[in-house]
Amino acid sequence: MDLTRTPAPPYYAVVFASRRSKGDDAAYQSTAARMVELARVQDGFLGVDSARDANGFGITVSYWSSLDAIAAWRRHPEHVAAQALGRERWYRAFSLRVSRVDAETHLDSGEDAPADDA
Amino acid sequence: MDLTRTPAPPYYAVVFASRRSKGDDAAYQSTAARMVELARVQDGFLGVDSARDANGFGITVSYWSSLDAIAAWRRHPEHVAAQALGRERWYRAFSLRVSRVDAETHLDSGEDAPADDA
Repeated sequence: MDLTRTPAPPYYAVVFASRRSKGDDAAYQSTAARMVELARVQDGFLGVDSARDANGFGITVSYWSSLDAIAAWRRHPEHVAAQALGRERWYRAFSLRVSRVDAETHLDSGEDAPADDA
Repeated sequence: MDLTRTPAPPYYAVVFASRRSKGDDAAYQSTAARMVELARVQDGFLGVDSARDANGFGITVSYWSSLDAIAAWRRHPEHVAAQALGRERWYRAFSLRVSRVDAETHLDSGEDAPADDA
Protein backbone atom coordinates (compact mmCIF):
# COMPACT_ATOMS: atom_id res chain seq x y z
CA MET A 1 0.00 0.00 0.00
CA ASP A 2 1.35 3.42 -0.88
CA LEU A 3 1.44 6.27 1.60
CA THR A 4 -1.82 8.17 1.72
CA ARG A 5 -1.73 11.69 0.35
CA THR A 6 -4.21 13.87 2.19
CA PRO A 7 -5.43 17.41 1.42
CA ALA A 8 -4.03 20.38 3.33
CA PRO A 9 -4.83 20.32 7.06
CA PRO A 10 -6.93 20.64 9.08
CA TYR A 11 -8.63 17.26 8.81
CA TYR A 12 -9.12 14.36 11.22
CA ALA A 13 -7.22 11.14 11.89
CA VAL A 14 -8.47 8.03 13.68
CA VAL A 15 -5.47 6.17 15.11
CA PHE A 16 -6.30 2.52 15.83
CA ALA A 17 -3.53 0.47 17.50
CA SER A 18 -4.28 -3.16 18.20
CA ARG A 19 -2.93 -6.52 19.20
CA ARG A 20 -4.59 -9.45 17.46
CA SER A 21 -5.85 -12.50 19.23
CA LYS A 22 -4.48 -15.76 17.88
CA GLY A 23 -6.31 -17.47 15.07
CA ASP A 24 -9.38 -16.79 12.92
CA ASP A 25 -7.06 -15.14 10.40
CA ALA A 26 -9.12 -15.77 7.28
CA ALA A 27 -12.30 -14.22 8.70
CA TYR A 28 -10.34 -11.33 10.21
CA GLN A 29 -8.49 -10.51 7.00
CA SER A 30 -11.60 -10.79 4.88
CA THR A 31 -13.51 -8.43 7.17
CA ALA A 32 -10.57 -6.00 7.46
CA ALA A 33 -10.34 -5.80 3.66
CA ARG A 34 -14.10 -5.31 3.40
CA MET A 35 -13.99 -2.49 5.97
CA VAL A 36 -11.32 -0.65 3.95
CA GLU A 37 -13.37 -1.12 0.77
CA LEU A 38 -16.48 0.17 2.55
CA ALA A 39 -14.68 3.09 4.24
CA ARG A 40 -13.42 4.28 0.85
CA VAL A 41 -16.94 5.03 -0.32
CA GLN A 42 -18.07 6.88 2.82
CA ASP A 43 -18.61 10.63 2.70
CA GLY A 44 -15.60 12.46 4.07
CA PHE A 45 -13.13 9.56 3.78
CA LEU A 46 -9.67 10.86 2.81
CA GLY A 47 -7.51 7.73 2.99
CA VAL A 48 -5.98 5.09 5.22
CA ASP A 49 -2.49 3.85 6.17
CA SER A 50 -2.02 0.49 7.87
CA ALA A 51 0.83 -1.72 9.08
CA ARG A 52 0.83 -4.92 11.13
CA ASP A 53 4.02 -6.62 12.28
CA ALA A 54 4.83 -10.31 12.57
CA ASN A 55 3.86 -10.32 16.28
CA GLY A 56 0.27 -9.27 15.57
CA PHE A 57 0.73 -5.65 16.62
CA GLY A 58 -0.82 -3.24 14.14
CA ILE A 59 -1.60 0.42 13.60
CA THR A 60 -4.24 1.69 11.19
CA VAL A 61 -4.71 5.42 10.66
CA SER A 62 -7.74 6.59 8.68
CA TYR A 63 -8.18 10.20 7.58
CA TRP A 64 -11.49 12.04 7.47
CA SER A 65 -12.75 15.48 6.52
CA SER A 66 -14.86 15.97 9.68
CA LEU A 67 -15.85 14.52 13.04
CA ASP A 68 -19.34 13.98 11.64
CA ALA A 69 -17.89 11.76 8.92
CA ILE A 70 -16.07 9.70 11.58
CA ALA A 71 -19.25 9.40 13.68
CA ALA A 72 -21.29 8.31 10.65
CA TRP A 73 -18.73 5.66 9.72
CA ARG A 74 -18.71 4.34 13.26
CA ARG A 75 -22.50 3.89 13.04
CA HIS A 76 -22.50 2.16 9.65
CA PRO A 77 -24.37 -1.15 10.23
CA GLU A 78 -21.75 -3.36 8.57
CA HIS A 79 -19.01 -1.57 10.49
CA VAL A 80 -20.93 -1.92 13.76
CA ALA A 81 -21.09 -5.70 13.19
CA ALA A 82 -17.35 -5.80 12.45
CA GLN A 83 -16.59 -3.77 15.59
CA ALA A 84 -18.51 -6.31 17.68
CA LEU A 85 -16.53 -9.21 16.20
CA GLY A 86 -13.33 -7.26 16.79
CA ARG A 87 -14.10 -6.80 20.47
CA GLU A 88 -15.30 -10.36 20.99
CA ARG A 89 -12.93 -12.33 18.85
CA TRP A 90 -10.12 -10.60 16.96
CA TYR A 91 -8.41 -8.15 19.29
CA ARG A 92 -6.77 -8.93 22.59
CA ALA A 93 -6.35 -5.21 23.14
CA PHE A 94 -6.73 -2.00 21.21
CA SER A 95 -6.70 1.77 21.57
CA LEU A 96 -8.63 4.14 19.34
CA ARG A 97 -7.84 7.84 19.26
CA VAL A 98 -9.63 10.59 17.38
CA SER A 99 -7.39 13.54 16.56
CA ARG A 100 -7.32 16.70 14.50
CA VAL A 101 -4.35 17.00 12.14
CA ASP A 102 -2.95 20.52 11.99
CA ALA A 103 0.36 20.08 10.22
CA GLU A 104 1.97 17.59 7.88
CA THR A 105 5.15 17.06 5.90
CA HIS A 106 6.12 14.50 3.27
CA LEU A 107 9.15 12.96 1.71
CA ASP A 108 8.95 11.07 -1.56
CA SER A 109 12.34 10.15 -2.90
CA GLY A 110 10.83 9.08 -6.22
CA GLU A 111 12.78 5.85 -5.99
CA ASP A 112 9.80 3.57 -5.69
CA ALA A 113 10.67 0.10 -6.84
CA PRO A 114 7.56 -1.90 -7.78
CA ALA A 115 9.36 -5.13 -6.90
CA ASP A 116 9.25 -4.09 -3.23
CA ASP A 117 5.48 -4.03 -3.24
CA ALA A 118 5.07 -7.69 -4.10
CA MET B 1 5.57 -3.86 22.67
CA ASP B 2 2.42 -3.30 24.67
CA LEU B 3 -0.17 -0.71 23.73
CA THR B 4 0.66 2.71 25.09
CA ARG B 5 -1.62 4.00 27.83
CA THR B 6 -1.89 7.77 27.67
CA PRO B 7 -3.43 10.24 30.13
CA ALA B 8 -6.87 11.72 29.47
CA PRO B 9 -7.03 13.89 26.32
CA PRO B 10 -6.24 16.43 25.11
CA TYR B 11 -2.64 15.65 24.21
CA TYR B 12 -0.74 15.46 20.93
CA ALA B 13 0.14 12.63 18.56
CA VAL B 14 2.84 12.60 15.89
CA VAL B 15 1.87 10.07 13.21
CA PHE B 16 4.87 8.97 11.15
CA ALA B 17 4.14 6.60 8.25
CA SER B 18 7.08 5.43 6.19
CA ARG B 19 8.35 3.05 3.57
CA ARG B 20 11.90 1.85 4.14
CA SER B 21 14.57 1.86 1.49
CA LYS B 22 16.21 -1.50 0.98
CA GLY B 23 19.23 -2.37 3.07
CA ASP B 24 21.24 -0.76 5.86
CA ASP B 25 19.01 -2.61 8.33
CA ALA B 26 21.47 -2.84 11.22
CA ALA B 27 22.24 0.89 11.27
CA TYR B 28 18.56 1.74 10.83
CA GLN B 29 17.38 -0.53 13.63
CA SER B 30 20.09 0.60 16.00
CA THR B 31 19.24 4.26 15.40
CA ALA B 32 15.49 3.64 15.62
CA ALA B 33 15.95 1.92 18.99
CA ARG B 34 18.18 4.75 20.20
CA MET B 35 15.59 7.34 19.17
CA VAL B 36 12.88 5.58 21.20
CA GLU B 37 15.24 5.39 24.18
CA LEU B 38 16.05 9.09 23.82
CA ALA B 39 12.44 10.16 23.25
CA ARG B 40 11.41 8.43 26.48
CA VAL B 41 13.49 10.84 28.54
CA GLN B 42 12.30 14.03 26.83
CA ASP B 43 10.02 16.42 28.68
CA GLY B 44 6.43 15.90 27.67
CA PHE B 45 6.88 12.43 26.16
CA LEU B 46 3.82 10.26 26.88
CA GLY B 47 4.56 7.07 24.93
CA VAL B 48 4.96 5.51 21.51
CA ASP B 49 3.31 2.76 19.45
CA SER B 50 5.04 1.33 16.39
CA ALA B 51 4.44 -1.38 13.79
CA ARG B 52 6.30 -2.27 10.60
CA ASP B 53 5.13 -4.96 8.21
CA ALA B 54 7.14 -7.44 6.17
CA ASN B 55 7.07 -5.14 3.11
CA GLY B 56 8.88 -2.31 4.91
CA PHE B 57 5.79 -0.19 5.48
CA GLY B 58 5.62 1.16 9.01
CA ILE B 59 3.65 3.49 11.25
CA THR B 60 5.01 5.01 14.45
CA VAL B 61 2.78 7.17 16.64
CA SER B 62 4.39 9.10 19.49
CA TYR B 63 2.33 10.91 22.12
CA TRP B 64 3.27 14.25 23.69
CA SER B 65 1.85 16.61 26.27
CA SER B 66 2.29 19.77 24.15
CA LEU B 67 3.31 21.14 20.76
CA ASP B 68 6.33 22.71 22.45
CA ALA B 69 7.49 19.28 23.58
CA ILE B 70 7.20 18.01 19.98
CA ALA B 71 9.14 21.01 18.65
CA ALA B 72 11.89 20.55 21.23
CA TRP B 73 12.25 16.85 20.39
CA ARG B 74 12.46 17.66 16.69
CA ARG B 75 15.37 20.02 17.43
CA HIS B 76 17.28 17.58 19.66
CA PRO B 77 20.78 17.34 18.08
CA GLU B 78 20.91 13.54 18.04
CA HIS B 79 17.40 13.42 16.60
CA VAL B 80 18.30 16.02 13.96
CA ALA B 81 21.20 13.81 12.85
CA ALA B 82 18.91 10.76 12.69
CA GLN B 83 16.32 12.71 10.68
CA ALA B 84 19.00 13.60 8.12
CA LEU B 85 20.02 9.93 7.76
CA GLY B 86 16.36 9.00 7.45
CA ARG B 87 15.81 11.40 4.58
CA GLU B 88 19.05 10.52 2.80
CA ARG B 89 19.28 6.82 3.34
CA TRP B 90 16.56 4.94 5.20
CA TYR B 91 13.19 6.09 3.88
CA ARG B 92 11.96 5.93 0.32
CA ALA B 93 8.93 7.94 1.38
CA PHE B 94 7.30 9.14 4.56
CA SER B 95 4.52 11.34 5.87
CA LEU B 96 4.59 13.05 9.25
CA ARG B 97 1.44 14.48 10.79
CA VAL B 98 1.05 16.45 13.99
CA SER B 99 -2.38 16.12 15.55
CA ARG B 100 -4.27 16.91 18.72
CA VAL B 101 -6.00 13.93 20.33
CA ASP B 102 -9.43 14.82 21.72
CA ALA B 103 -10.98 11.43 22.41
CA GLU B 104 -9.83 7.89 23.05
CA THR B 105 -11.19 4.48 23.91
CA HIS B 106 -9.50 1.24 24.92
CA LEU B 107 -10.14 -2.46 25.00
CA ASP B 108 -8.02 -4.78 27.08
CA SER B 109 -9.40 -8.29 27.18
CA GLY B 110 -6.99 -9.27 29.93
CA GLU B 111 -6.05 -12.33 27.93
CA ASP B 112 -2.49 -11.33 27.27
CA ALA B 113 -0.42 -14.39 26.57
CA PRO B 114 3.31 -13.74 27.08
CA ALA B 115 4.12 -16.44 24.55
CA ASP B 116 2.69 -14.18 21.81
CA ASP B 117 5.26 -11.51 22.51
CA ALA B 118 8.27 -13.65 21.72
